[in-house]
Amino acid sequence: MTSPANTIALLTDFGYRDHYAGVMHGVIAKIAPAARTIDLTHGIPPQQISAGALVLSQSWRFFPPRTIFLAVVDPGVGTERKAIAIDTRAGARFVGPDNGLLFPAADAAGIKRIVELQSRRHRLPEVSATFHGRDIFAPAAAWLARGVAIDQLGPAVKQIVRLEFDGGVKQDARTLAGKVIYVDTFGNLITNLSRTRVDRFGSDFRQCRLSVRIRNRTPVGICTAYGDEPAGVPLATFGSFDLLEIAVRDGSAAEHFAAGAGTPVKLRAERR
Amino acid sequence: MTSPANTIALLTDFGYRDHYAGVMHGVIAKIAPAARTIDLTHGIPPQQISAGALVLSQSWRFFPPRTIFLAVVDPGVGTERKAIAIDTRAGARFVGPDNGLLFPAADAAGIKRIVELQSRRHRLPEVSATFHGRDIFAPAAAWLARGVAIDQLGPAVKQIVRLEFDGGVKQDARTLAGKVIYVDTFGNLITNLSRTRVDRFGSDFRQCRLSVRIRNRTPVGICTAYGDEPAGVPLATFGSFDLLEIAVRDGSAAEHFAAGAGTPVKLRAERR
Amino acid sequence: MTSPANTIALLTDFGYRDHYAGVMHGVIAKIAPAARTIDLTHGIPPQQISAGALVLSQSWRFFPPRTIFLAVVDPGVGTERKAIAIDTRAGARFVGPDNGLLFPAADAAGIKRIVELQSRRHRLPEVSATFHGRDIFAPAAAWLARGVAIDQLGPAVKQIVRLEFDGGVKQDARTLAGKVIYVDTFGNLITNLSRTRVDRFGSDFRQCRLSVRIRNRTPVGICTAYGDEPAGVPLATFGSFDLLEIAVRDGSAAEHFAAGAGTPVKLRAERR
Repeated sequence: MTSPANTIALLTDFGYRDHYAGVMHGVIAKIAPAARTIDLTHGIPPQQISAGALVLSQSWRFFPPRTIFLAVVDPGVGTERKAIAIDTRAGARFVGPDNGLLFPAADAAGIKRIVELQSRRHRLPEVSATFHGRDIFAPAAAWLARGVAIDQLGPAVKQIVRLEFDGGVKQDARTLAGKVIYVDTFGNLITNLSRTRVDRFGSDFRQCRLSVRIRNRTPVGICTAYGDEPAGVPLATFGSFDLLEIAVRDGSAAEHFAAGAGTPVKLRAERR
Repeated sequence: MTSPANTIALLTDFGYRDHYAGVMHGVIAKIAPAARTIDLTHGIPPQQISAGALVLSQSWRFFPPRTIFLAVVDPGVGTERKAIAIDTRAGARFVGPDNGLLFPAADAAGIKRIVELQSRRHRLPEVSATFHGRDIFAPAAAWLARGVAIDQLGPAVKQIVRLEFDGGVKQDARTLAGKVIYVDTFGNLITNLSRTRVDRFGSDFRQCRLSVRIRNRTPVGICTAYGDEPAGVPLATFGSFDLLEIAVRDGSAAEHFAAGAGTPVKLRAERR
Repeated sequence: MTSPANTIALLTDFGYRDHYAGVMHGVIAKIAPAARTIDLTHGIPPQQISAGALVLSQSWRFFPPRTIFLAVVDPGVGTERKAIAIDTRAGARFVGPDNGLLFPAADAAGIKRIVELQSRRHRLPEVSATFHGRDIFAPAAAWLARGVAIDQLGPAVKQIVRLEFDGGVKQDARTLAGKVIYVDTFGNLITNLSRTRVDRFGSDFRQCRLSVRIRNRTPVGICTAYGDEPAGVPLATFGSFDLLEIAVRDGSAAEHFAAGAGTPVKLRAERR
């Protein structure tokens, strides 16, 4: 029987055409045959660390408490960037490169301990220069799933690379200015404006009079569900990310606004 | 040991780029750690309910008898459409939105009982307006897998939304007229002309003299295997769907005929 | 508890849009509920037997010893090509069509016994002309996972279709000429020049003075990691395949060189 303690969830930018993700599963099955594995996604846009970090930070809460997140978006593979594992107060564990990818999720879960993956006993006998997902990260996650203590994987690390989503958000009396940080399959535009931030944005804020401006187009109102507007009409809502997102019912907001990661988004408070 | 009774098979239009399908797996693992999950597909074209319904109706028979099919193609998420679960005489169970998606499969399996998913104990504590797959449907499927009786998920429902594939099929003495209802990855054109319907189509029907007409191109003969024609030549056959499909060996019939979902297809009976 | 002996790894060209791969999982779960399944990949380019063979040959070593590889890239489905299963000295087992797909991996693992899948008891009751993955191959793999001996699946076969990757490699005093045989998601160009072959290529070979020529562009040096060159600069390295591959850091070598499967690649030894 599979216990909740040994679930491994994989997130990578390897895509689905190659065998890279599948081989990581093979390595895990060899080391930890009783572990349960879940593909969180292998569809992170190639080498977009911040997209991977966002998805991970939005997902980890929904998994069993001691899940091991094996995350690999790793443009610096083969260079000096560290390979790390993190244990957290919430219980979730994270394994991957030290390039910011793990930071937002681990930070939200409460970082308790970080180690550098230096133990030779807990990697494959031969380590390639290009595929640490297979040779270092998958073995480390599998050994954790088998019950090896995180300290056995290598020495403690104090500092890791940080990554913040809302660094660029600017606010004045009537405007909150952020940007699109992720575009999903449906063409929904996810911004870096969190529900908390928007709520704090002013006492004169009223849900249906706040307007969202993107690309100098007609301002968009904030609604509560995709189905509230007719097909083809854009709307803004707090989606499953708990971030402000712009959507078009039965359509693609990315196409409608010709927008993508980086496009500025402004929230304007207007008196009723 | 995993028993056949608690397999959950997932079908969605979430694609593979985002974490939406992965998060549903996380929710299931948290509630029902012993359940076995299978990704039937997450590649249904976005918001195409009938494509999802077709794929589900063609697939359920091949799974273990008590499999729970968790199906989410849900353009009306957040509106008044019901969330439902269905038990069937064949044993298969279905969980998803009440928009026709579940109907053809559940109907073929013999609908025994339908409930509306209203129980608060069997959903996530917070329900978003945009992601019922995570917040309502995945929890319901997981609780069923844990052995909760379907009646505990909510009150009985009498009527659900119906969806029929062969509504538009027309027949006269020498012609059976249908259309393409699905295009697969290989570019094969799957029509709504079932083997049963074609067999009934006339006593003068002989397999190799029935011709298929599409887009005013040279009529296509009906053959028994993709390999029966040389590469590049179109053929019609009863494929794995048990529906008439048009294929091109080592090529794409969709490209060859510039055809897609909705393209008319005629079957003409000609004397030898 | 899942034992390492009954892992089934799937490799196909079915893609992720349709339910074909998912239905194979359903068939396996029905016959062998305790088997563990891993999707090696379903993203092999449609009907490219040699791409599938390459991926399989590069992957099998990383899986548990008695893994059953269920591989389906099968343009000849429904014709006279045999359906086979192979047992090997290394322990790995292979199930799929006899068209060369299984050969390189099985050959490397040491072919011990080959059978033709003729047993009617070990396939689905009805066998379609177009989907042997579901009707013949998945059941055979599942029965093997349940412990059925390979001999029970059908009579022994002596000869199978062979497939060699380095057939076209030519060598003279200063040049080794091969070609690209696979392009991965990142646009890396994988050649048929193995590390062994390149090492043998001459006593005057020194890693940093061997240059790689492709498409009459500036020669590319051989480096040890993707991170060794700045973003946008091409490099050649021995990647995870242990084959010479050409990459562009933070970019696509396939786009940079307008190259794909079949593009000639030359290695030139130059005196320091």
